[in-house]
Amino acid sequence: IYHVGWDFQAAEKGGYAHFMLKEIHEQPRALRDTLSGRLQPDGKVKLEGVNLTAAMAASIEKIAVIACGTAHYAGMVGKYLMEKLLRLPVEDDIASEFRYRDPILNEKTLGLVISQSGETADTLASLREAKKAGAQILAITNVVGSSVAREADHVIYTWAGPEIAVASTKAYLTQVAALYLLALYLGERRGAAPWAPGLARGLKELPGRVEEVLKLEPRIRELAGRMAAHEHAFFIGRGLDYAVSLEGALKLKEISYLHAEAYAAGELKHGTLALIEEGTPVVALATQAELLEKMLSNIKEVKARGAWVLALTQEGNTAVAAEADAVLYLPPVSSLLAPVVTVVPLQLLAYYTAVARGCDVDKPRNLAKSVTVE
Amino acid sequence: IYHVGWDFQAAEKGGYAHFMLKEIHEQPRALRDTLSGRLQPDGKVKLEGVNLTAAMAASIEKIAVIACGTAHYAGMVGKYLMEKLLRLPVEDDIASEFRYRDPILNEKTLGLVISQSGETADTLASLREAKKAGAQILAITNVVGSSVAREADHVIYTWAGPEIAVASTKAYLTQVAALYLLALYLGERRGAAPWAPGLARGLKELPGRVEEVLKLEPRIRELAGRMAAHEHAFFIGRGLDYAVSLEGALKLKEISYLHAEAYAAGELKHGTLALIEEGTPVVALATQAELLEKMLSNIKEVKARGAWVLALTQEGNTAVAAEADAVLYLPPVSSLLAPVVTVVPLQLLAYYTAVARGCDVDKPRNLAKSVTVE
Repeated sequence: IYHVGWDFQAAEKGGYAHFMLKEIHEQPRALRDTLSGRLQPDGKVKLEGVNLTAAMAASIEKIAVIACGTAHYAGMVGKYLMEKLLRLPVEDDIASEFRYRDPILNEKTLGLVISQSGETADTLASLREAKKAGAQILAITNVVGSSVAREADHVIYTWAGPEIAVASTKAYLTQVAALYLLALYLGERRGAAPWAPGLARGLKELPGRVEEVLKLEPRIRELAGRMAAHEHAFFIGRGLDYAVSLEGALKLKEISYLHAEAYAAGELKHGTLALIEEGTPVVALATQAELLEKMLSNIKEVKARGAWVLALTQEGNTAVAAEADAVLYLPPVSSLLAPVVTVVPLQLLAYYTAVARGCDVDKPRNLAKSVTVE
Repeated sequence: IYHVGWDFQAAEKGGYAHFMLKEIHEQPRALRDTLSGRLQPDGKVKLEGVNLTAAMAASIEKIAVIACGTAHYAGMVGKYLMEKLLRLPVEDDIASEFRYRDPILNEKTLGLVISQSGETADTLASLREAKKAGAQILAITNVVGSSVAREADHVIYTWAGPEIAVASTKAYLTQVAALYLLALYLGERRGAAPWAPGLARGLKELPGRVEEVLKLEPRIRELAGRMAAHEHAFFIGRGLDYAVSLEGALKLKEISYLHAEAYAAGELKHGTLALIEEGTPVVALATQAELLEKMLSNIKEVKARGAWVLALTQEGNTAVAAEADAVLYLPPVSSLLAPVVTVVPLQLLAYYTAVARGCDVDKPRNLAKSVTVE
């Protein structure tokens, strides 16, 4: 646990108006630090705190992701990723639900615990529950020596550096990076992983891609002005984009107090579409190549009800651009790695919307940085 | 598929102002019909359209619940229930996500498909996907001869009768009832089920309990007046109450256009608490005996930020009553069966809030009764 005094920190914003903005801009560096030394030149992955032999890795029959809030949404990216690549069933749970729902665990379960602070009360209690049931525990955390790090069997540290703003940005991004590393690590040990070299190459390029996407900042600032005038917003996506939508909506909620809600795009028709009226802002994530056409239908659906649509998609997706009211073009990365570049504009959108609404960005009302009470 | 003309139906509201209200009141009958003939006097369960031998039932290693909207929330109740009672892992998926996420299925998976109409496009496509992967399919549907019923290996019909209102009420309740029956059926065939006699007894009493809870109607109508003045509302719960919260929030969204959102109560601290301000309505479900103390903390948490709290809990839970601004007391049923009596006041709350806001209850804007497009 690190204790920091607020006055002391005021001097450390490094020219940025808020810690959150500083931390958003630190992400290329944080990502480099998290990946460096771990992605070897030969494409293999070295994780110092993880000691799973091939036999142990092969014996895993299920991964149980356990986390809260933003870390839970990072875990959802991990779920998609690992099920797809490793063909291993992955459950994901909110820690405060997991610990009371009598989950089915045994020594063939890998408990994957994610917590920036490593002190989140419900997460720590769930870790202990899973350990008692015989599960191996692998923790992803940002704080060396934290309770979660000490009690886990294996640890991947995110080298995000201290995160001061209550709304997590670089911690999320590095948690997601750690999950890609873990997928590579398990893939190596569980045998055939033809996808591994491509994923490793893509990962190495990510810090540069995040630098590129940060250049959208002036345009996002403009769009945030439009957002700030509303009290409701919806975020929609499919597959990995749905997981990122959840994080994008949470950011906006936390610091701008705008009631943002994320929806799996295909679910809108089953109720929430009723809330869309003239001018309602809808942020549509359309980065998954194989789901593009379906997303396009969903964009048309909300447009037909009067929504104002801000789409995020890769350059060249002209069909999406033709339907949306505004587009943010993302640097070219594969569908699998898209979450890392997609979340950054959403962080900036939340930041500038909060600033436009005059909110206290770094210390939002009612929230604490790390939730050490239950 | 039943095709019905609107004018014809106008004559069939049986004295109620809307189909939705009529259908809410039909629930004791619908529940009786769904349970009758299936719950035998000796406590055993007979399901005509289900033919799982003991060997087949024992071979199931995972249940995959696949559904959309309200049916998906019924499925979440089933997930809690079956994991707890059968100690069998249950996944639940939104059909529009399931079909594209390359799910891990095989002949040891029971695909549990839930759809009122039996024609929901994404659900039907997912059923076919699961079947192709070798899974046995068990469908819960309201329409005899529907596509889902025809293509499934096993069917449980909900005897809800035709549901005309777009917002589902009696279909949800009977889907949940069918899930209890399925738990009993699988429990019998998979061996030791010491919980079965108690559950069967409780089930038999449910129609009467739903009649009792309907008597809260005048009080709920009053409370809806308070709700109607707001544009936001939150529903919170833990465990089974969380699943019911999701359905309660969806009802309110669909027909009153109030932006309602459900949250696992323990997750509030991780972001959404920032949205609570003076007077924000929070509907708190506190029916789960073993989670009562934790829910009490969550109620205090939102109260401290100025929320107006409407609590639903069993008579005698004076600690909850002392903290909440208004309480609806539920008839005494076990924690496991609580969803059936808890959802009814939430349906009435949505109904009267929509009426107070002058909304077209039976035909909410933008929505169709059964979503046969993707």
